Amino acid sequence: MKLTILGCYSATPRAFTNPTSQVLDIKNHLFLIDCGEGTQVQLRKHKIKFARIKQVFISHLHGDHFFGLPGLISTFVLLGREAPLHIYGPKGIKEGITLLLKLGNSWTNFPLVFHELSSASSELIYEDDKVEVHTIPLEHRVYTNGYLFREKPGERKLKIEEVLKYDIDRCYYRNIKNGRDVQLDNGEWIPNEKLTADPPKPKSYAFCSDTVYKPDIIPQIEKADVLYHESTFLEEHKDLATKTKHSTAKQAAEIALQAKVGTLVLGHYSIRYGDLEAFRREAQTVFPEVELADDGKVFEF
Amino acid sequence: MKLTILGCYSATPRAFTNPTSQVLDIKNHLFLIDCGEGTQVQLRKHKIKFARIKQVFISHLHGDHFFGLPGLISTFVLLGREAPLHIYGPKGIKEGITLLLKLGNSWTNFPLVFHELSSASSELIYEDDKVEVHTIPLEHRVYTNGYLFREKPGERKLKIEEVLKYDIDRCYYRNIKNGRDVQLDNGEWIPNEKLTADPPKPKSYAFCSDTVYKPDIIPQIEKADVLYHESTFLEEHKDLATKTKHSTAKQAAEIALQAKVGTLVLGHYSIRYGDLEAFRREAQTVFPEVELADDGKVFEF
Repeated sequence: MKLTILGCYSATPRAFTNPTSQVLDIKNHLFLIDCGEGTQVQLRKHKIKFARIKQVFISHLHGDHFFGLPGLISTFVLLGREAPLHIYGPKGIKEGITLLLKLGNSWTNFPLVFHELSSASSELIYEDDKVEVHTIPLEHRVYTNGYLFREKPGERKLKIEEVLKYDIDRCYYRNIKNGRDVQLDNGEWIPNEKLTADPPKPKSYAFCSDTVYKPDIIPQIEKADVLYHESTFLEEHKDLATKTKHSTAKQAAEIALQAKVGTLVLGHYSIRYGDLEAFRREAQTVFPEVELADDGKVFEF
Repeated sequence: MKLTILGCYSATPRAFTNPTSQVLDIKNHLFLIDCGEGTQVQLRKHKIKFARIKQVFISHLHGDHFFGLPGLISTFVLLGREAPLHIYGPKGIKEGITLLLKLGNSWTNFPLVFHELSSASSELIYEDDKVEVHTIPLEHRVYTNGYLFREKPGERKLKIEEVLKYDIDRCYYRNIKNGRDVQLDNGEWIPNEKLTADPPKPKSYAFCSDTVYKPDIIPQIEKADVLYHESTFLEEHKDLATKTKHSTAKQAAEIALQAKVGTLVLGHYSIRYGDLEAFRREAQTVFPEVELADDGKVFEF
């Protein structure tokens, strides 16, 4: 599971900081999460292949999470994309994007499939044989969702020396990996646990931005391997966090602690603070495993 | 008259090239012309004060000339702007911008004044005591205007030694600069041309992008000091230029020659060409005074 931070600063793009966008590489899928202005340039800088992006998840329709999407779609058009692009985001995103394309008399030569969200409860919005994606309803100044990306349990691992010992035909391997017992030619049953080991534990990633401190997301993100949680402010500006419906680094750490996640990644920093380490220090008073997102940073979990 | 090129490449923003946007500093006005994605970052990089921008002129509603505007407006909101922002552009621009702001539940705390254009003829769209701006109807795949920025003639220059010789009271200076003759106390009339010299010649700047080769703009831009004319292609791809309603460097030079402009500035390059000098060489086979726009380049005329 590889997470590339394209941008992780709040509010406005600046000369050397970018608004929210990240790419999650999980089970050979490349999910784009949020798409602030300049995302396509960041994708190019980090040599991420545009064609590998098939799904885009937009948390909410504030510009710093969304204004890069019309340009990215236009670029897909210019690049001659043919594969469908699936866009998940709040109700209204379809109207916004299609109006901008229409104004430029531009149409996509690939299917642009909108999945508009409006539920206040968590929903399973994407699923294939390897991964599922659920919304995490957040609370911000506009309708907002985080997203939980969860690997499905993989096949059990063959203990190949055991399988060879019993001289089991290859055609049974698939069934064995799926947990079945095997009957030998002599009628003897070999239980599956003799032939296989547990698959690697499925990984999960929870993206939570933007949101006020919202403990009721905890059951949903419990034991996630990685939680990205916004920390726009430090505790000294807790009043501002409450007012603007953002979180502090300490609040993000409290969520991480209660949800027993593996690693907390902080981001969506207000640019009023010179030193990002202050976010880490504050969070670590509550929860030890803290990483700081930064533009261009790549995490492998 | 100072022209700062923020971006001058066609199509999509890339790691080191930006789509169209430029700032014209003329008679102490700062006009923003086009606003491709990333314009606000380019403004920051070039230390251009956001507050000085009061008018934005958008040529057409293709993304590479327009998708930076929603983000720029959002940034003005965050910066607490109070001064009105005037936006000139094709009909539809108001609907597009206001929908995007509405989707984010964002409103400007300053007046956002749209001047929507739909005429096929040139119009005077802005005027104050120093500058006027006219549209230059162009021909592209969507409704498009160039813009002609023209200084108004300034006051005549006082020949101060003459004025002092006749011991003329200071209260007459304003009238003299405006071309009036003066009667001395002894009844003698002093003709204005004895007391003043011609003011500096008013300057003009014509911005023409995007457009197919369109000689009927020539009367309108005649003798402009500077013509920025798109040259997306070289002559070797003239068929593509015609098909996509763009121009070649040679065609831009033909317009410059026939319009007898002072300097031709080329831009809006397709990124298929490695060497920008090829554009200059091609244009100079027709017209000698050619400059190449490039991101971050500043021209003083």
